[in-house]
This record gives sequence, structure tokens and C-alpha cells, in this order.
Amino acid sequence: MILENQQENRNSQKGAKNRKPRMPRNNEFKQNKKSKSSGNEKQNKRPRNGQRGGKPVKIIFLGGVGEIGKNMTALECGDDIIIIDAGAIFPTEETPGFDLVVPDISYLLDNAKKVRGLILTHGHEDHIGGVPYLLKELKVPVIGTKLTLALVDNKLREHRINDVKEITVTPNQTVQLGCFKVRTVNVNHSIAGSLAFAIQTPQGIIFHSGDYKIDLTPVAGEPIDLKTISDVGSSGVLLYMGESTNIERAGFTMSETVVGTTLDRLFGENIKRRLIIATFASNVHRLQQIIDLAVKYRRKVALSGRSMLNVIEAAEKIGEIKIPDDVLVDITHIKNMRDSEIVVISTGSQGEPMSALTRMANGDSSYVTVGANDTVIISASPIPGNEKPVYRVINNLYRKGADVVYESLQNIHVSGHACREEHKIMHNLLKPKFFIPVHGEYRHLKKHAQLAEELGMPENRIMIPDIGNCIEITQKGMRRVESVPSGSRLIDGEGIEDEKASTVIEDRIQLSEEGLFIVSVAVSGGEVVGEPAINSRGFVFDFHHDYDREIRAVIKRAIDGYDLSRGNVDGLKRAIKQSLRNYLLKKTKQSPMVVPVVVEL
Amino acid sequence: MILENQQENRNSQKGAKNRKPRMPRNNEFKQNKKSKSSGNEKQNKRPRNGQRGGKPVKIIFLGGVGEIGKNMTALECGDDIIIIDAGAIFPTEETPGFDLVVPDISYLLDNAKKVRGLILTHGHEDHIGGVPYLLKELKVPVIGTKLTLALVDNKLREHRINDVKEITVTPNQTVQLGCFKVRTVNVNHSIAGSLAFAIQTPQGIIFHSGDYKIDLTPVAGEPIDLKTISDVGSSGVLLYMGESTNIERAGFTMSETVVGTTLDRLFGENIKRRLIIATFASNVHRLQQIIDLAVKYRRKVALSGRSMLNVIEAAEKIGEIKIPDDVLVDITHIKNMRDSEIVVISTGSQGEPMSALTRMANGDSSYVTVGANDTVIISASPIPGNEKPVYRVINNLYRKGADVVYESLQNIHVSGHACREEHKIMHNLLKPKFFIPVHGEYRHLKKHAQLAEELGMPENRIMIPDIGNCIEITQKGMRRVESVPSGSRLIDGEGIEDEKASTVIEDRIQLSEEGLFIVSVAVSGGEVVGEPAINSRGFVFDFHHDYDREIRAVIKRAIDGYDLSRGNVDGLKRAIKQSLRNYLLKKTKQSPMVVPVVVEL
Repeated sequence: MILENQQENRNSQKGAKNRKPRMPRNNEFKQNKKSKSSGNEKQNKRPRNGQRGGKPVKIIFLGGVGEIGKNMTALECGDDIIIIDAGAIFPTEETPGFDLVVPDISYLLDNAKKVRGLILTHGHEDHIGGVPYLLKELKVPVIGTKLTLALVDNKLREHRINDVKEITVTPNQTVQLGCFKVRTVNVNHSIAGSLAFAIQTPQGIIFHSGDYKIDLTPVAGEPIDLKTISDVGSSGVLLYMGESTNIERAGFTMSETVVGTTLDRLFGENIKRRLIIATFASNVHRLQQIIDLAVKYRRKVALSGRSMLNVIEAAEKIGEIKIPDDVLVDITHIKNMRDSEIVVISTGSQGEPMSALTRMANGDSSYVTVGANDTVIISASPIPGNEKPVYRVINNLYRKGADVVYESLQNIHVSGHACREEHKIMHNLLKPKFFIPVHGEYRHLKKHAQLAEELGMPENRIMIPDIGNCIEITQKGMRRVESVPSGSRLIDGEGIEDEKASTVIEDRIQLSEEGLFIVSVAVSGGEVVGEPAINSRGFVFDFHHDYDREIRAVIKRAIDGYDLSRGNVDGLKRAIKQSLRNYLLKKTKQSPMVVPVVVEL
Repeated sequence: MILENQQENRNSQKGAKNRKPRMPRNNEFKQNKKSKSSGNEKQNKRPRNGQRGGKPVKIIFLGGVGEIGKNMTALECGDDIIIIDAGAIFPTEETPGFDLVVPDISYLLDNAKKVRGLILTHGHEDHIGGVPYLLKELKVPVIGTKLTLALVDNKLREHRINDVKEITVTPNQTVQLGCFKVRTVNVNHSIAGSLAFAIQTPQGIIFHSGDYKIDLTPVAGEPIDLKTISDVGSSGVLLYMGESTNIERAGFTMSETVVGTTLDRLFGENIKRRLIIATFASNVHRLQQIIDLAVKYRRKVALSGRSMLNVIEAAEKIGEIKIPDDVLVDITHIKNMRDSEIVVISTGSQGEPMSALTRMANGDSSYVTVGANDTVIISASPIPGNEKPVYRVINNLYRKGADVVYESLQNIHVSGHACREEHKIMHNLLKPKFFIPVHGEYRHLKKHAQLAEELGMPENRIMIPDIGNCIEITQKGMRRVESVPSGSRLIDGEGIEDEKASTVIEDRIQLSEEGLFIVSVAVSGGEVVGEPAINSRGFVFDFHHDYDREIRAVIKRAIDGYDLSRGNVDGLKRAIKQSLRNYLLKKTKQSPMVVPVVVEL
């Protein structure tokens, strides 16, 4: 593994100070510099390796395409595999009661010896949430920026995973992983330390955008490195894999500084009131803006919510966030402070049921009692699907008398993802030969593909991937080859689920929608003895009671009609289940789950 | 009951031709006309009845405040009650598996003798969906426009309810219901035949907006009757009850004609392709625009989805929609027609699981096989909470190769509700003395109240209602008095639920999130006999199997530790439940439902 720095004098590269950069094995990127300085801007110039032919590169999609969440893509060439991101996704109503869903990594386990490293674009859950589950089964080096790795470390500690080889990178470094030479490129996003990757492969450069926006006036750190992106483009990009989250939005995403302006106004308008601001813990630049305003308006900052404490601690330790002394106060102390002296920064901007803000809205918080002198600012948008819980929290805060400032009518949040005009800039600078849209539901990928066509790319140079797809690429073309094992691993409590998960889920959905009937009978010496016991749960009330006699008759007929003498208890169960199901469907137009139980004496 | 026409020569009033208008009992509204014609525009002029004092009017909120859905408000004065709307709401994840939720009407049943009539603002489900459930228990006359009553009639036929007294009204009529004189006022909305009500009460005029927008270039029918609204305002409005749905949106809602322009362009751009357009069946003006474009572009129209057929049939019968001969074709015939000759109008714009569009997207439609030559236009926005199913349908349509046009980047839908500038106009014209925001979640009501304050209304003349609230109003003031019984009635399959529904729901939620353990034991002569039978469903796979021995030991200890000799089977159940629950929580950090069953021999 080789680390190198491209631009020794850049500010953004302090983090690598303690590492010894070695000489690069080849010099594609230095060549790029030359071609730039000579003003040479040839389009689609092929990298040298690629021109010699050689083994094709396979791109294997294990998650994050056809969905937003659990991003994971592998690049494979000969005996080398690298993994880009290992994300998780939160369960939906289709997987009720599970805690987390991560990609199926069977393919990586089957090819464990080839895997050279896991490179992380940034520290959001949909990009790093699956890291512990991957590392439990596959020991690979993990490469990311300081903040990304600090957030990964929090997870590894929780899971008690040690001995992980981590490589901290800054923008504009390269890391050699087998035959892949990964160059890091600074991008803007709603979390600090976000990267795109320009990956030199034997077939040419594959550029992966990560999650990005173009913010030329970021609150901290550098703007997206358009210069390097342009240089990489000039040197010839074989394939661009670009994120697609906001492809449905026209125009240009607003800069993070816009939020600061709005917040400054709100601090000014609410001088005598207590301020409670909910936002994503991982958006450290947003947190920095709030802390700076607290200092300006002479307020103390109290943090509420475990992840807020964790992230701020991790970010402060590595210098990503700067908090002057005496600004932070413990949340337990704020009851004795004047409202005008305090700003609470809280988790729960998505209405998560157990989060700090939801507890405040429900009156369940031990430390913050929301009332008429509070202004609650929700500096976030509901992620699609979270609208109802978010609005429930807002309604409850209003009911407690608070004033609530949220996205409606206010510039209180900006997205971390590129809108259409930004995507056009990226395509224009990179001028890729081939394009694969990633990071989106199918409609996002499709619309991103259409955008590429509008920009002049021939349709046959674009492919829309699906989870499990394996796309083989050479300089000459790309094609879908045989899919790999793929899917979801559902994680529930302490255990990891696999193939049986779908049955569990189906059962849960039936139980939640239709309820349950339990019929227990005792069997002794090949005969049913005593009276069956009937129980129902989650079923139309008192139906069981009202129709008890009929139900008993149905069950009795099923038992009487079945010959138990051959001892086939399972057959008896089926008979009871079938008769009762038919009866209930006819009578109630519902299909509760019928569970027949036989106690053998 | 008295019907009268205010303006005999208006076009919009044809529907009342067959009814004999009688003379009004008093003449406030005629007075208004005079005051208008004399240019007299005194503000807050008190109506004469009101000036004499008398019994206060009670406004009783039974649904539709603090929520969007199941609108129902009662006005009571002395021995008279009128009901405004009787809506339903569709179940959420908090009430899984139920079919419909309607307001608790105990208060109306307790005061059945007072109820003079049900007046309906318009024919949307959240305003008429509860009508059959109300009429099953309370015989009252139902008053609405032709389309509203036609849609009600569809429901009554389904529920086999006969002998309902219906009174068809047009805009600018009055109906005397006890001491209430209800004047109908034309408004625009996303369904034809929408009304506001100016209700003369013994204390003064209460103006109820219904659902409205200001569309001065509607596709059919008249623009909102701003003139009458202004006249009512000049004559003095005691209380304004205004809808609040879009209070979070700045500006002015676009006219329905905008959608026609976009659709026309899309018809022109897709000359050779098949068109499938999904929209709300009830938006008959939208349907009319599509039919007109089909005629213009020489296409036939096929209808898909039961409610689409029902509504078009009802609307055509009463003349609300005009379909030239030979335009409609049966959906079963379209397989033999060329793509360029057909436009399918379909239900399912909200991604409803069993709807026509969802079936097409899933490849389950018997009549429409979606492919690469289809352009699917979704002329609707996802109602908050429906985002996921709607986007799932869009993704699946794209996967089938279709082009999909939806709200993103296209003016393919406009809202039926007023935005902020329209609300300001309404407040300005009505100049009410008191204001109660309705039709919205709490945050909408709060923001509408704030808007009224911005417009100059003192805070103490505004009240935000909650379901069950009873607000008493006189010319001098309004105050909250004792609440009435209220809540939700859950309707599941054939039955109507009441108080036990919450237990059913809690059970269902627990079952869906945590799964289920059943322990059955046989008891004979005060002793447990045989081995307990253990079953689990929807629980982490094989846990029961892997830990069978431990679980059995836990159950055995519970049984052995319990003295059954006194025959207390329930105590035994509790002991088993408690032990197993503790064990499972400790071992798995989960709380499946534990159902202990005793079969007594």
C-alpha cells in the first residue's frame, strides 16, 4: 500500500503530516499536471495503461443503487478488489422491527483474499454504517479522512472490534491498493472530510463522485477541488460514477453560508428567548456556525442527544470543530440558567422516536421542558419517508407553546447534494467516456442518465445498475456480465439475519395488519382431549367472544373430521388452520394469522 | 327547511331548477345587497339578531382540526344543531390494518333530536367519507351540490342505505336549518361543486371557507365568488373559520389551466407514444382537460380503476363532465389499438397498493402492459406520508422502460388549496371579528393564527381548536367551554370499532415490531401435564430452536414455582409470561409478545 501527496503545500493536507509519503509507482497524475500546464485539453484522452489493453475491470454493485442507503461498490481487476463505502440503511415498514439493514457481502467473503482495502467517501451512516459488520467477517485496511475514521472508530468501539488497520488520508493523496491507485479529491457535502475518488485502473481512470455539492463559499475547509477534477478530466476519464440524489432539483444547491445568515437573524430576533436548535450531528460545519453565533450573542451551548455528544467530541479532538473554552455547559445545568443565556443543540431533526427533540416535544425530556419562551429551530429537511414523524414533533412543540422555525418559508437548511446545474458542471469537467449513475432510487438514476444524454453522451455508453449487477469495463466498452450474490442482511437486536429474515418479515406484516388467532388442543393416545383453548390478539375486538360458539363448532368439526390414529399431529394442525381461516375470511373478510398448537401428553 | 335562491339569473344555479324556492324568513342577505349597492362598507357591522343578544352559539369540533382528514364540525344554538361535513381518514402506521377512520359521533347521537341537517362543502373523502357511518345511526337531511351528492349516493348504494333526504343546492342559495340560515358560496377547489358557507346564526354570521383556492381562470364553472364574500364581509362577519392546508406555502396557488398547458405540450411531444395519465378521480376538471386534449389529438380514452369509472359516470350523468360520443373505449379493447390512438386515465396517483397504476407498475394489470413506448404522466403530488409508495410506483414504471412525467421539474399538478396570499385576500374581504383556523395539523392552524395576527387581528380574538373542543361564541366574545366526547372510530372489514380499538392497535404494533412467542400447557386436576408446546412467529429466526433447552428450563421453573392447587390458571399464565419475557429481554434485548395458553383437561 502506498501513500503519496500530490500537492505538498496545500492547507487541507495537514492531517497527513505524520505519515511518510513514498514515491508513486507510476506518474499518471503528474502527467495530468503537465498536460494542464501546457494548456492541452484533449477530450477522452486514454490513459496509457488502458491503451495497452489487459484485464477488464469489473464494477460490482452491492448496495446504494435503486435505493438511497447502504452504499457499497466493489472494483475488481485480476486478483485485486477494492471496496468503496460500506453503508447501512434504516428499516422501513417493509422490514418492521429490525434495527439496521446492511448489504449482503457473500461475494466479498468468497473472494476475501483479493480484497485490498475499503475506501470511504465520507462519514454518513449510508456510507459507513455497515463497516463494523463488514470488518467482523473480513479483515481489510480502512481508508478515509480524519473525521470519517473518527466516526468509524466510534462504531468499532461499540462493537468491540480492535486491530483494524486504518489509513488517514487528506485530499490530493494517492493510495495504491493492488493494481488500483486511488487519488482523493476534496468535495463539499453536509459533513466535513468528504471525498471523491479518481481511481487509476489498468483500463483507465474511474472517477467516483461520492456525495457532493459545489460550495464555493463553504463555512470551513476548502471548496470542492474543481481544478483537480478538471485536470483529471483532461487526462481522460474512462468512467464516471456520479451520485444522483438531487437530480430532480433544478438549479444549484445553496451554499452552507446561507444557513448561517438565517441563523444569525434568528439569534438576533430571539434575544430574550431560549433557543433550541435541532440538526444532524454529523454536519459539523453547521454545528460550528451555531457555536460561533452562540459566542457572538453571548450564549452558552448545551448538547442534547448521545450522537451529538459523540460527534462533537470526535470532531473537536481532530480539530474539525473549534469550541472556545467556557462555551459548553452540561445539559443538566441549564435549568438554573436564564433563557437568554442558552442555546441547546439537539439531535432528532428527523423525528426519530427516541431522540432528544422528540422527547422534548412529548414532555419526556429530563433536562429541557419546552414552553412559551422557547424558539425551536429545526435546521434540516425531512428525509423522504420521515415527513410524518417530523411534523408530529413540530405539532407537539407548537402545542407546548414554543415557536417553531422549520423549513417552511425559511432558509434554515441547505442540501448536501448537487442539483442539476452542478451535475452538468461535473460531467462537463470530467468528460467521461462512459457513465454509470449511482446513489439514487431507480428514477434518480434514470434521470441522471437522461441528463448525461442531454449533455451529448451516446445512450450506449450509459448503464443503469441494479444491486448484484456486475459491469465489466475496458477502454472499448462496458457490458453487464453474470450477477453476483447480493441482497440485504437484516440486523435485529444482537443477531444478524439472513435467509430466514423474509419469513419473519412476512409474519410480522401479517400480524400487524390482520392480527392473530391461537388454537391450542391437547392430544393424548391418538385422541384430542379436553376443550381447545382459543386466544386472539390484535384482532377485531370481541369477535372471538361474540362468535365463540361458532368458532368452537368449526374447530370441533375439523378435529372430528381428522383421523389422528396414525399420530400425524401436523395434519391435525393443518386441518384446524384451514377450517378456521376459511371461516374467519368468510365472516370478517380478514385473514388473521391462525396458529394451531398441539400439546402432546 | 327553506331553500331560496339569491340571484335568480346566475348560470351556476341551474341545478336548482326543479326545486321551488320559498321566501326567506328574514332578509339579512338581501340587506347585504342593499348595503353593497349603496356603497356602504361599514366594517364589523353586527347583524340584527345578534344585537339583541340571545343564546350563544357553540362550535363543536369532532374532526379535522389538529389533523388533515375526517372533517366534522357542529354548530349548536338552543335546540338546533347543524353538522358541517362528515369526513373519513385513511389509516396510518399507527392504526395498522384498519380500513377507515371516522369521527366519534357520540355527542351527535346524544343530541340526535336537535340535529337539523348535514351540510357538505364538497365531495372529497375527508369531507364525505364518513357520511354512511353517520347516516346509519342518525337520520338527517344531507345538503350539498349535485356532484357532492352524486358521490355520496355512490357510497350510500354500497352501504345499502336508502331513504335519505337529500337537498341539492347551487351557489348563492340559502337553506334554513332550525335557527341557522346557511348561504352557499361558490369557491374553487380540486373538485367541482365546492362551497363555502355563510351561516347566519342568532349571534351573527359564521363564515366557513370549506376547502378553497382562488382560481380566476378555472377550467370550467365560475371563479370563486369574491363579490359575495366581500358583501358578506361588509355586512359583518362574527367568526371566520378558514382552512389552513397550504398556509406554509408562500404566494398564490397556480390556476388549474396551467396543468392544461403542460398536458397539451406533453400530448404534442408524445404523438407516437401511448399515454397513461394518473390523477385523482374526483378532479373532474382535470379529467375534462384530458378528455378535451384526447379529442384534439384524435385519441380514444380508456378508463382504468373502479373509482375512475364511478366518478366519471356520476359526473357525466349530472353534466359536470362532457364527453363527446365515441371518445370512450373499454379498457379491455385497447390491446388491439395503436399506441398513438389511446390515452388511459387511471387511478393510483398516490401509489395505493391495489390501484390500477400500481398494478400496471408491478406488471399485474390484465389490460395495460407497460413498456418502452408508454409515457406515464402522474398528474398529482404525493400527499404527505404517501411519498414512498408513489416513488416506488415511479421507479417500477421506469424499470419497465416507460418514460415517466411527474411533479419533479414539471407543472403537471396544481394544489386545490389557497396559499398565503390567497388567505390574506380572504381575511381582508371578510374582516371577521373572531377567527378560528381549521382543516390542518396543529402547525398549520398555528401558522394561520399567526397570519391573522399579522393582518391586524388581536391575539385574544383567535382560538386554535382541538378535537372535542366546544367553543361558545357571542358578539361579545368566545370562550372554550366543557369538551364533548370525541375521538376516532376505527372501521375494520365489516365491523366498527370503538373503545377496544386501541388495545388491538397496540397488540398489532407489538406483534409487528417484536414478534410473538406462544407457550401452551395442558392442566389436569390441578397439575400441569405433558410437555409445554412452544411456538414463535415473526421472531428472530431459530432463536426458539437454538435456545429450546434454556427456554424449556425457564418455563419449567415458572411452572414448578407456582402452586396450581388452588386452581388459579390465570396466575400460572402470568408466571409463565413474566419469566419468559424477562429471559427473552435479557437474551435478545427484544420484547416479543408472550402468549401463555392453558388447555384445561
